[in-house]
Amino acid sequence: MSEKAIPHVVIVGGGFAGLWATRALSSADVRITLIDRRNHHLFQPLLYQVATAGLSAPDIAAPLRHILRGQRNVEVRMGEVVAIDAATKSVALRDGEVLRYDFLLLASGATHAYFGHDDWAPHAPGLKTLDDALAIRRRLLLAFERAESAESARDRAAWLNFAVVGGGPTGVELAGTLAEIARHTLRDEFRRIDPAEAKVRLIEAGPRVLPSFPESLSAKARAQLDELGVEVVTGTPVNAIDAEGYTLGDSFVRAHTVVWAAGVAASPLGALLDAPRDRAGRVQVEADLSVPGHPEIFVAGDLASVQQDGKPVPGVAPAAKQMGVHVAKVIRARLRDGARNANEASAASSAEATSRTLPFRYRDFGNLATIGRMAAVVHFGKLKLSGVLAWWFWLVIHIFFLIGFRNRLIVLINWAWAYWSYQRAARIILGGDADAESDQLHGAPKP
Amino acid sequence: MSEKAIPHVVIVGGGFAGLWATRALSSADVRITLIDRRNHHLFQPLLYQVATAGLSAPDIAAPLRHILRGQRNVEVRMGEVVAIDAATKSVALRDGEVLRYDFLLLASGATHAYFGHDDWAPHAPGLKTLDDALAIRRRLLLAFERAESAESARDRAAWLNFAVVGGGPTGVELAGTLAEIARHTLRDEFRRIDPAEAKVRLIEAGPRVLPSFPESLSAKARAQLDELGVEVVTGTPVNAIDAEGYTLGDSFVRAHTVVWAAGVAASPLGALLDAPRDRAGRVQVEADLSVPGHPEIFVAGDLASVQQDGKPVPGVAPAAKQMGVHVAKVIRARLRDGARNANEASAASSAEATSRTLPFRYRDFGNLATIGRMAAVVHFGKLKLSGVLAWWFWLVIHIFFLIGFRNRLIVLINWAWAYWSYQRAARIILGGDADAESDQLHGAPKP
Repeated sequence: MSEKAIPHVVIVGGGFAGLWATRALSSADVRITLIDRRNHHLFQPLLYQVATAGLSAPDIAAPLRHILRGQRNVEVRMGEVVAIDAATKSVALRDGEVLRYDFLLLASGATHAYFGHDDWAPHAPGLKTLDDALAIRRRLLLAFERAESAESARDRAAWLNFAVVGGGPTGVELAGTLAEIARHTLRDEFRRIDPAEAKVRLIEAGPRVLPSFPESLSAKARAQLDELGVEVVTGTPVNAIDAEGYTLGDSFVRAHTVVWAAGVAASPLGALLDAPRDRAGRVQVEADLSVPGHPEIFVAGDLASVQQDGKPVPGVAPAAKQMGVHVAKVIRARLRDGARNANEASAASSAEATSRTLPFRYRDFGNLATIGRMAAVVHFGKLKLSGVLAWWFWLVIHIFFLIGFRNRLIVLINWAWAYWSYQRAARIILGGDADAESDQLHGAPKP
Repeated sequence: MSEKAIPHVVIVGGGFAGLWATRALSSADVRITLIDRRNHHLFQPLLYQVATAGLSAPDIAAPLRHILRGQRNVEVRMGEVVAIDAATKSVALRDGEVLRYDFLLLASGATHAYFGHDDWAPHAPGLKTLDDALAIRRRLLLAFERAESAESARDRAAWLNFAVVGGGPTGVELAGTLAEIARHTLRDEFRRIDPAEAKVRLIEAGPRVLPSFPESLSAKARAQLDELGVEVVTGTPVNAIDAEGYTLGDSFVRAHTVVWAAGVAASPLGALLDAPRDRAGRVQVEADLSVPGHPEIFVAGDLASVQQDGKPVPGVAPAAKQMGVHVAKVIRARLRDGARNANEASAASSAEATSRTLPFRYRDFGNLATIGRMAAVVHFGKLKLSGVLAWWFWLVIHIFFLIGFRNRLIVLINWAWAYWSYQRAARIILGGDADAESDQLHGAPKP
């Protein structure tokens, strides 16, 4: 780049890390290109609400262009990065365009992984995108329809058997809400089945649910799940999943509806970098979140593997936001150092050395997970809450952090309505007619 | 049927006609099976708002089971009717089940038709279902994205050329709203294009838009469309549509986004009856809405062809509701007559003859169409309104008739927000990532 040209920052991914980095560079003398495969930023912590028909897809998403319309140094591009060339400092998009960068931030997040069992994917969809959420919603709602028209008690039972694999926050949220739907939301609506007879099972291969929480809160969460009617199975892995059911330990269980909330793998974009990666595919970055040997390339959010005090920084929204903001800070420091050094006619490499002294430090404000109606657990420092109070805490935090005034209001009204009526606003089966759906149900995970 | 058995009424289709007939039979001594391919009743008059990203799909739809949960004589079945046997009085579902009926109401509505040009369908999607609406929304929003990343002025122009074919209420609503999106909603969000340069053309083969309204209101509607920036072309048919554009009269226009709002054809279920049909496939019913020769089979809503005072009853929601209620009234009368005649030991055929004297009469309360922001036309008897007052009238009527308290409130808030902010709530592109989308864009009309 010529010294006079405005430095070009390319940011890949409009999630929490990418969007927060973009905003933190709003007053920097750079031009930014933000690239995402989708046109929207997604408030992922509420994705399970879309999957369980409580919220509409647009309630938890906002167009990136709209969020950033006032930030004049940003250009938003909807597209997919297919190659990164660190030598020429350029990224290539699928449509053929090549973008040169001065700084690159890779923040393309994570996807779900089946631990080498990709053949399970069609039978146990995971939850990472809005399309995933709508596919799961369709399956859950269709299962009750199929049960209602089932011709044998055996078929009916298989359609009313639900399993959620993975006892982390997403699995707990899905299982708790699903039990609420079966017990309350669908009451009185069927004539041949009683939806309350649905069995909702939460399966965790490890010893306890919510393993990232203290043991006492895991126990509280389990008690609250019991209360909601969820059968929790811990310490037993799922060994197979197919169209007819799943194998838990050694025994086969007939069940047509299995949801996957167990494995997470880093976005495949990490592999485009020539950098060390951990087992989940996350890029092992330097203390300042740059890639070893490439001080101009950064990785942030779920794609970054960061160790702090001997523990990994968790893949949660606050960590992603903090990493995004940190990368912006490092870039601004580099530009300042570069300008000073240029004035002093010293070497650029010394500027890099200076900025390298800005290590990222994750500030852990706490951890919270909702379980179902009036049930949640909260862990903030020494504060441990569970039950109703934790649920209100969770609600306020999530409404507060949801992007955009309108979304907050709509979500709040939906929840108030859901609370008083036990109803769920988005119980609409989309994507093909009833029978086409039935044919596809076990063949394809997505529309 | 044995005289003691409760008569079974099978209703096919949960639209306005089928749902209103079902409700009107709530206190009748019958058991009802309501069959629909989808799980929801759809408020079709607002479907264009979902297509143009103003509302979410669940805002204008409610599960049939939920609407009817309190009506104990109804069983809702999600399924598709594939055969009707009037001799054995039975309908067959795609999943193999056969249902015997004593009375049958066919109310499966209409679909869009391409006047024998089914090859146009992938390039000019129509608007009848929520899936259609989401497919159109995706196309409209993606067109601006494609324009932003287009490499030549020629490509850019083709992505910014929009055409709506058909100048009826749906076409007018779509074109007006699309112009508003281009001029206001997307302002400031793009860096390489100015969305306001988008050309929105409304094409009507006949001499004027809104042909079902008086000429003076057609003229007012046209003036309001001009004001909104829509180019209205009348008296010229579209002769071809492909992936590159469309042929208007003799000239080819490059345009990647064409929406079809021109042709309507009756649901193919009408062909399963041995009954006379009109050119659009609608069943020509008797005065009481029964099928000639089959007093126990009725057709209502958009699938019925009814003449009144030498004019066809229009395919609008109020007509469908009135027909549904009328069929329920005829069925109740038949049951009463049948019971009386059974007591008097007279022939059942005379009972039918009595009930046949209940002819359907459409009560036309008026006609209204919205055009865009603060623009509408209203025709109620001698009352003719246009502009702001008509728009408020339209808004109140539509909110009032929308099913379900919650939906009304959410829709009202969305509109209030849209009005003050010029924003649209549901600008989320769903269904695959950017490039997969691009590949499919001209190949498949649905996800």
